[in-house]
Amino acid sequence: MATLRNLYEPNTDLGNALHTNFDVDFVIDYRFAGTDKVQAEREFEELIKALNNVGLSTEVRNGDNFAVLIFVKITSERHLRAEVYRSRVQDWLYGVRVIAPDKDMQASLSSEPVIEAERLRLVYLLITKPTNEGGAGITPKKGKWKAVESIFSLHDHTFNKAWIKDLTSKYFLSQKDLTEIRNRFGEKIAFYFAFLQSYFLFLTFPAGFGFCSWVILGQFSPIYAIVNGLWCIVFVEYWKKQEIDLAVQWGVRGVSKIQHKRPDFKHESVVQDPITGEDVKIYSPVKRLSRQLLQVPFALTAAFILGSLIALCFGIEVFISEVYSGPFKTYLVFLPTVILTVMMPTLSTLLTGFAARLTDLENYETVDAHENAMVSKIFVLNFITSYLPIFLTAFVYVPFAQIIVPHLDIFQLTVRPFAENEKQMTTPNANFQINPDRLKKQVIYFTVTAQIVGFALEIVVPYISRRFFRKVKQVKAERAMSSDLAGNMTSNKSSLAAKHPDHPAADDHPEEAAFLARVRNEAELSIYDVTADFREMIVQFGYLSLFSVVWPLTALSFLINNWIELRGDALKIALETQRPVPWRADSIGPWLDALSFLSWLGSLTAAALVYLFRGDGLGPSGSPWDIKVWGLLLAMFFSEHIYLGVRMAVRVALSKIDSPGLQKERGERVKVRKQYLEESFGQEVADKALSGGISVGETINRKTLEDEARESSLRGHGTPEEMFWARQRGVEDCVAVGKGYIGKAASRMAASKESKKEL
Amino acid sequence: MATLRNLYEPNTDLGNALHTNFDVDFVIDYRFAGTDKVQAEREFEELIKALNNVGLSTEVRNGDNFAVLIFVKITSERHLRAEVYRSRVQDWLYGVRVIAPDKDMQASLSSEPVIEAERLRLVYLLITKPTNEGGAGITPKKGKWKAVESIFSLHDHTFNKAWIKDLTSKYFLSQKDLTEIRNRFGEKIAFYFAFLQSYFLFLTFPAGFGFCSWVILGQFSPIYAIVNGLWCIVFVEYWKKQEIDLAVQWGVRGVSKIQHKRPDFKHESVVQDPITGEDVKIYSPVKRLSRQLLQVPFALTAAFILGSLIALCFGIEVFISEVYSGPFKTYLVFLPTVILTVMMPTLSTLLTGFAARLTDLENYETVDAHENAMVSKIFVLNFITSYLPIFLTAFVYVPFAQIIVPHLDIFQLTVRPFAENEKQMTTPNANFQINPDRLKKQVIYFTVTAQIVGFALEIVVPYISRRFFRKVKQVKAERAMSSDLAGNMTSNKSSLAAKHPDHPAADDHPEEAAFLARVRNEAELSIYDVTADFREMIVQFGYLSLFSVVWPLTALSFLINNWIELRGDALKIALETQRPVPWRADSIGPWLDALSFLSWLGSLTAAALVYLFRGDGLGPSGSPWDIKVWGLLLAMFFSEHIYLGVRMAVRVALSKIDSPGLQKERGERVKVRKQYLEESFGQEVADKALSGGISVGETINRKTLEDEARESSLRGHGTPEEMFWARQRGVEDCVAVGKGYIGKAASRMAASKESKKEL
Repeated sequence: MATLRNLYEPNTDLGNALHTNFDVDFVIDYRFAGTDKVQAEREFEELIKALNNVGLSTEVRNGDNFAVLIFVKITSERHLRAEVYRSRVQDWLYGVRVIAPDKDMQASLSSEPVIEAERLRLVYLLITKPTNEGGAGITPKKGKWKAVESIFSLHDHTFNKAWIKDLTSKYFLSQKDLTEIRNRFGEKIAFYFAFLQSYFLFLTFPAGFGFCSWVILGQFSPIYAIVNGLWCIVFVEYWKKQEIDLAVQWGVRGVSKIQHKRPDFKHESVVQDPITGEDVKIYSPVKRLSRQLLQVPFALTAAFILGSLIALCFGIEVFISEVYSGPFKTYLVFLPTVILTVMMPTLSTLLTGFAARLTDLENYETVDAHENAMVSKIFVLNFITSYLPIFLTAFVYVPFAQIIVPHLDIFQLTVRPFAENEKQMTTPNANFQINPDRLKKQVIYFTVTAQIVGFALEIVVPYISRRFFRKVKQVKAERAMSSDLAGNMTSNKSSLAAKHPDHPAADDHPEEAAFLARVRNEAELSIYDVTADFREMIVQFGYLSLFSVVWPLTALSFLINNWIELRGDALKIALETQRPVPWRADSIGPWLDALSFLSWLGSLTAAALVYLFRGDGLGPSGSPWDIKVWGLLLAMFFSEHIYLGVRMAVRVALSKIDSPGLQKERGERVKVRKQYLEESFGQEVADKALSGGISVGETINRKTLEDEARESSLRGHGTPEEMFWARQRGVEDCVAVGKGYIGKAASRMAASKESKKEL
Repeated sequence: MATLRNLYEPNTDLGNALHTNFDVDFVIDYRFAGTDKVQAEREFEELIKALNNVGLSTEVRNGDNFAVLIFVKITSERHLRAEVYRSRVQDWLYGVRVIAPDKDMQASLSSEPVIEAERLRLVYLLITKPTNEGGAGITPKKGKWKAVESIFSLHDHTFNKAWIKDLTSKYFLSQKDLTEIRNRFGEKIAFYFAFLQSYFLFLTFPAGFGFCSWVILGQFSPIYAIVNGLWCIVFVEYWKKQEIDLAVQWGVRGVSKIQHKRPDFKHESVVQDPITGEDVKIYSPVKRLSRQLLQVPFALTAAFILGSLIALCFGIEVFISEVYSGPFKTYLVFLPTVILTVMMPTLSTLLTGFAARLTDLENYETVDAHENAMVSKIFVLNFITSYLPIFLTAFVYVPFAQIIVPHLDIFQLTVRPFAENEKQMTTPNANFQINPDRLKKQVIYFTVTAQIVGFALEIVVPYISRRFFRKVKQVKAERAMSSDLAGNMTSNKSSLAAKHPDHPAADDHPEEAAFLARVRNEAELSIYDVTADFREMIVQFGYLSLFSVVWPLTALSFLINNWIELRGDALKIALETQRPVPWRADSIGPWLDALSFLSWLGSLTAAALVYLFRGDGLGPSGSPWDIKVWGLLLAMFFSEHIYLGVRMAVRVALSKIDSPGLQKERGERVKVRKQYLEESFGQEVADKALSGGISVGETINRKTLEDEARESSLRGHGTPEEMFWARQRGVEDCVAVGKGYIGKAASRMAASKESKKEL
């Protein structure tokens, strides 16, 4: 790609600064603009000491915007190795690893080298963990660390450039590519890319089938709906399996059990666990539940507010396009879109902020629980903003248009200034026809236009604005320079700084200047939020499962969009955001539930849409008023239960299939068992034991039995039990007696047969 | 209980034979009546040798019916201890135990003594396991062990008597009682009693509420339906939790992972597992799937056959009771019941046999998979026979009676011989009224009458028939004796035997005679099948969840029935069946799915019943013809989805509650972790580590840093990285430089503020 170079090296004067990170693990952006000098200095000293106390080296340099940049690296490799080893032992103790790490630390580390993500994660934890857990306890923007703006690691630009280049030159990511992402950015982000990749691959089928269906079957085809529902089931169930498999391969299965405590958690009391003897900080679950119940009014209020806004705009739009016949109609039609575009983001931000406060109020103990609670609220908000308009069109406007449209006169207000007479604003009483294409147009808007707009807002706009602001900064600096009379021809940034003792770069050592300039840029970048990207994909999946029967090309549009999306997200991580902290994860978390839920809901909406709009798009018998409600309900009822049945079958079928991850796990378990048995019983027995039971049964011999019998007789007659077991001594005796009985019985049998014959 | 003594000591002449088992672990009933003498003797010898080879002692005695009884016990306690230890190590390796058994076998066994169920299970496995897994490989009634009729352990009558007495004197079983059952009869049976107990306890609520509802609300009350649905959810979810808890407490959680191979499994090929290197016997899963698919036609055929029989009898009954008006009506009404009573068990047995053959055909690898497949088929059959009649009445007869009844004329055939004229057999055209009480009567029949009949068939009839046949046997023996002239006044069984050399007891040693007589009786008993008892309870739960809204007293009837049921089952185990092999289990298995399914289905049927029959029991507006199908469907739709929502909420709520089992597990995990950490890092660190991370961070000191710097300067200028990190030496230097930057920036800040003020 010719433009990649452009994109990638915005500041050519940074030169080889992109190729080294000076061994820096993390950079702390310390901004003291808000505090006075004495406090800033005191807190800075505390910060440096806290870092040094946990074995981190620091270097300090000037930053932009009244900030200093603190460069942090782990002091000695030995310290890092100890941290890695401890983390791995902890993993094993929590069941994340099957095989215990070698008790010899060195051997353990050389058999499994430290990857970059692991190193960065552990250093980050060292900086942020509470002091009683052995960390420096630095929590950005909170408490006494209010001045700590952010803690970020530096991009590996050499890798990033190669990565982006590689991504743009291929269609599918291989397992190796995903593992590479995991090694650099951690499992949480790797899971996002793995999900996106699986989703992209799976989309090829409905894209192809949807295209054929569009050509041959038209819209609202029951066949398309069934195939699409099946595809949703297979995709969701496949991903569930794939997720586990990846977690096993990356050695993080069950890692969600190792929970990071939330520093913001406020406990009510400290109780000693009766079992483990640990002190446990308690927050009354009843209190939390009562606060969680606030979610219900919150969801209802949000649905009401967003719903009324959407319904209002929808009503105005219908009124203008279907009823109004005055001047400016072509422009007025866009009025509701403008209202929505202005109001919606504001309302969404407001409600998201409220959701965040609600989640804080729920006061979760762990980071995971907090995040999950927040995600579920975000999902509810997104569900309303994304799907409600289409629901309104499909299930309110079309079936009830003839009831509703006459009442739309209330929206006359919006066009009164433009209308020339009352007639232009009243419903034509006769021959009002609902617009059956409205639904399709809306779906196309959400699945094509909105996706493109979203991509632009996510990637293009931030890129342009960043370039713009950097340009402004540069121009400002140059103006400052030109005001300086002694302009030097070979001036570059660092010499520029030398001339301006007030500039933050003034103190930079020449050989570090380019590097520091880059770090100052990275400090300005925003933080990457994988949740937002997940949200986007899940909402997209929702359109496919809920409404794609309206417009079968949906999947094709998504297929194209997602090819770009994946590369766009990679670019965003590499260029637009700070390098993310490589957190671990063993799944895509609560989004999986959202996925299942949307897939299920799809079985209901698809059936309803097909039933309502099949044929000419106007219901079973041409007019929506002839819809049989019981037919609709019956269609939905069957669709849902067939869906649930098929899902169960697919689950069972997939559970029977072996996979690399499961094989790996099985192999590890067998290894552990063998090792233990070898330690306890020796080599040969271990081999035998693994193929079943352990068969070192003692064979009984006549000798021991005779000894026992003698012993018993020495003690006199023995107990009745001893007498009972001593009657037949050894196998031969037992066999002989038994044969005697059999012989006797056989002759008796023969005799009875004889006597029967005689009778 | 006065009759307990009667029940319990049917043969008073057995005297203290009930109080000792002569240390016998198992008895093998070897019946050679079918084979010729030579073969019988050869196989007998093989049998004895096979047993002795795996360390089991044998004694042989005469049995009834051309059989010998082989008494088996484990030869030495040391051998038993080794078996126990190996089994416990295996448990640990499969994750059933959290804590590894002490590597010193003796210490391990003395810290956790062997319970009776464990001993019997291991001995049984020793007898039945394949030879390559270290067992004797004896499979009753199969292959070369065709003559082995059964392998059973002897009842501990002292315990049994005390147990039954204890059970009949209390209302609820305590945790201790359940653990006692587990110690004696194994976890599988203990789970049955635990389930029955939980179910009984939970029933008290709907029994009370149902009674109030019956008095106040009448039948088909929506309130009752909602409360009942809620109760079903809470019960099923509670049991799921309770099941896990019990499994943890009994140390069997996850024991279902340790699968016993089915001796009947036929493999197609042997493949080496690429991971573990073990030989794995393979049966093509595709082939199995194709055979599993036979279940669909099987279920359909069964539904059709049983359904038509039920529908036929139902039709005849309706015809006779509602249409027919000729003579003998009172008696003829019972005709369909007679047909059902005669045909149904025959058909059921036939179909069950067919299901068993189908399951054999599916050729499962493990005993568990085989049993589960069988249970699911049995459930389908029982579903049809138990619920179809009520479904027919509720959803076919009542709504469609006016369509159907006129066509019932085809059943004229059945009463033609009795009718006096045609008129008696034709439908009265006008004023035909459906009988709304029919549904209630039917539910009462199934929930009261059928339960009592079932109990009688299960407990009373076998008891009486056993007594009868024993009496016959005794009379026969006495007659044989009286034909002997020298009648001895003090004759008892053994002396009787002495007089009759042909009698199997003839060879008995006098001091064993009573014991052997008892063993001969136990050999005749049937084998206890816990599946049948589970089936009965699950079917009963089904009536409650599906139809109790018809007759709210259902739960009260079940409460009374189940008090007796539990004692009856205990009596059955103690007296009517051989002592069961104490198998382990970690749940009630596939019955749990059946339970969830019935509870879910209840949300649909209850809503439908309430909608159809509310008010006067004849639909919403007096006549069933006015039923709105969409109303019915909407009611069911809402009911089901509210059900699913509430179930999820109950699940989440229950998952938050701590329980003794979970506490135990947590405690064990902490113990294991602590132990490992102590071994690797020593006491103090272990304590610290458990409360979070491990905090032996190396504090950095100026000395080391200076050394490093000196080293770097010795090497010349060092790499750029070394230069970067050497600029500030140690904490003080870093703090000083940072303070300098802050000071400078602060003055700049102040200056810019000043300049702004000036402007």
